[in-house]
Amino acid sequence: MDLSRAAAEHRDAADPLAAFRARFAGTDDDVLYLDGNSLGRMPRETPAALARVVEDEWARGLVGSWSSWIGTATRIGDLLAEGVLGARPGEVLVGDSTSVDLYKLLVAAADARPGRDVLVCCADDFPTDRYIVAGVAAARGMTVREVPADVDEGLDPAVLAAALDERVAVVVLSAVAYRSGALADVAAVTAAARDVGALVLWDLSHAAGAVPVDLAGNGADLAVGCTYKYLNGGPGAPAFLYVRAQLQEQLHQPIWGWFGQRDQFAMGPAYDPVPGIERFGVGTPPVLAMAAVEVGARLVAEAGVERLAAKGRALGELMVALADAWLVPHGVALASPRDPARRGSHVTLAHPRAWQLTQALVDRGVVPDFRTPDRVRLGPAPLYTRFVDVWDAMDRFRKVLATGVHEGYPTERARVT
Amino acid sequence: MDLSRAAAEHRDAADPLAAFRARFAGTDDDVLYLDGNSLGRMPRETPAALARVVEDEWARGLVGSWSSWIGTATRIGDLLAEGVLGARPGEVLVGDSTSVDLYKLLVAAADARPGRDVLVCCADDFPTDRYIVAGVAAARGMTVREVPADVDEGLDPAVLAAALDERVAVVVLSAVAYRSGALADVAAVTAAARDVGALVLWDLSHAAGAVPVDLAGNGADLAVGCTYKYLNGGPGAPAFLYVRAQLQEQLHQPIWGWFGQRDQFAMGPAYDPVPGIERFGVGTPPVLAMAAVEVGARLVAEAGVERLAAKGRALGELMVALADAWLVPHGVALASPRDPARRGSHVTLAHPRAWQLTQALVDRGVVPDFRTPDRVRLGPAPLYTRFVDVWDAMDRFRKVLATGVHEGYPTERARVT
Repeated sequence: MDLSRAAAEHRDAADPLAAFRARFAGTDDDVLYLDGNSLGRMPRETPAALARVVEDEWARGLVGSWSSWIGTATRIGDLLAEGVLGARPGEVLVGDSTSVDLYKLLVAAADARPGRDVLVCCADDFPTDRYIVAGVAAARGMTVREVPADVDEGLDPAVLAAALDERVAVVVLSAVAYRSGALADVAAVTAAARDVGALVLWDLSHAAGAVPVDLAGNGADLAVGCTYKYLNGGPGAPAFLYVRAQLQEQLHQPIWGWFGQRDQFAMGPAYDPVPGIERFGVGTPPVLAMAAVEVGARLVAEAGVERLAAKGRALGELMVALADAWLVPHGVALASPRDPARRGSHVTLAHPRAWQLTQALVDRGVVPDFRTPDRVRLGPAPLYTRFVDVWDAMDRFRKVLATGVHEGYPTERARVT
Repeated sequence: MDLSRAAAEHRDAADPLAAFRARFAGTDDDVLYLDGNSLGRMPRETPAALARVVEDEWARGLVGSWSSWIGTATRIGDLLAEGVLGARPGEVLVGDSTSVDLYKLLVAAADARPGRDVLVCCADDFPTDRYIVAGVAAARGMTVREVPADVDEGLDPAVLAAALDERVAVVVLSAVAYRSGALADVAAVTAAARDVGALVLWDLSHAAGAVPVDLAGNGADLAVGCTYKYLNGGPGAPAFLYVRAQLQEQLHQPIWGWFGQRDQFAMGPAYDPVPGIERFGVGTPPVLAMAAVEVGARLVAEAGVERLAAKGRALGELMVALADAWLVPHGVALASPRDPARRGSHVTLAHPRAWQLTQALVDRGVVPDFRTPDRVRLGPAPLYTRFVDVWDAMDRFRKVLATGVHEGYPTERARVT
């Protein structure tokens, strides 16, 4: 690979997604933002979409606007299903947080497997996934099997297979590991779980908009995911949940809110959930926040997940090659799978001074993400990150290491609060 | 009472809250909006607050803005606690929907009363409250006692008392009934439940910002409530939850999300909730939606709940007097408590043609709220509804009835979808 800056510029010139960059705010300043996998950038259309909802629909349309708002959760759901997740219309719903959605589907799935007393999750999965599994298991007297994963290479399919038997009700797993970026094999895990009669509940937070997840093609049963990372829906934007159509009527989520009710405004005496995906809804959805989600989801659908994934792989390969050439000599180690076919869109590097390096980089206009205790996560977002951005960021990274300027930063991470 | 329009104008001129009207969008057009108890109007400050969060904090500050966003849920919580709910700082948290918050606190409360097998709710309470009680009872093998209420007069304290015994774990009750506007006696119900060792979980959706609830003074243990009605937080705005400080560490909510975790960014192996109110948080809070909640909550706190309640009572009295004089002769009946001290800020009228009347009123610039099967709910919001607005709305209402123009409207309510 040609590691010159000119080669990176050349690749940008040939990038079929290059035009999307201008559709995000802040891309004309010189911040090298490599944390789109934590909080995606703001689409330039978002303020106008919000103004439309706030000033036209809310301020002027008042309560009458509910005739259009009522369909928002499924309209964005269908957009995500067809444009991003490889699912079918009527299989995806937007609303609540990823954590609440995970809880609802996990309880529903465990209820659908009566007599089974084990939940499986990955010991290196994102905290909220592990904690929610633990909470549901504790409430139901179930056992948790935490499958170990290599924090750099991800979950070994053979290790997972060894944890599966007919006691397992549900497996909760991230399609892209939050720390290493390691990709799970959605089809193989789904099939292995199905062989023992278990359901898999996928967390797509680091996958949606970054890699094709092809939920229908892979036979996935259940999934949830975040919209504020690669989908650019804004801080704390409402999450999505997916339930395969054929499963929907068999599943009963535990929070019997009025937005899951058949003939909602009849306000009848007993809870009687609608047959479709809306049965997994609970309370009134956050309309303002959903307007921002819709803008972000539409951009990803327009760009196309296959093209985004291809560019994401290429950006990652460049990053790994530059890390090998420039950073490894200074004690940095790759903490993601080396094979780009086994990674999502982010690359993680390990160094004992990771927190000090993160601070030094931020002060030099590079925004990575620190993950305790010793990881620097670099998440180029193919919608708006250029090859030269990766080159420039890695160049600044090597200069920090070469000068040792990071040694002057505090070693303890200050509390975010 | 002088029922002339001039008298209403005179009262507006003397209204100490009159200046707040100009701080809401749409108050310079001639819509008589009497549905602020369903969706409050938009404060004129809201677009700028949203723009600040979106264009400054998100677009420019990017992920670094989490250092301020992380405190939003408790900052607005404290504002509501002190300015609106009569609670103490550290007792209120904003996030999730009212339904999800109700579920979390209900499960936590039921867990805190082991060995008890009954949940009590009101048969005429808002659907989501009844459904969530039913769902939690079903999941735990508990029994629901649905206490009957007079749909017009509200819950009779003696009827509730008869339902309380030492089998009862939790009572779920609205402080202001959604249909009739009937006020419950928060202190008396709380004390009666405590006498049998039960907890009361209040739904303050129709009370917060309309009447003083004085949670600390009334000894309330638990509450949830909506921010998009009298608090003007916007469609589907995140809800609030309240847990009395002394109870917080005894309660464990069921959705073990990472926003309830002590030292959240250590991402430790086991769920270990913070001791304070944040233990009732779950996922990443919806930052954009919360910005709108903060504006609305601040306006209510500035106006003062006592002044709002006094004006709300006066608006209701005028409405009832005009209904007696003008509408009752046409077959309309009062479907709220007649005593203003027993009402929240809305007044409900019954008529067999309620749905047709609602449509006819909307076409004549009056926006009420229909509640199946035969109720027209009129919710003047003391922050922006004038006495002349009530007078004009009732005047249009009597003209509709006098001309019978409503008879020409469809009798079946069209589906909102």
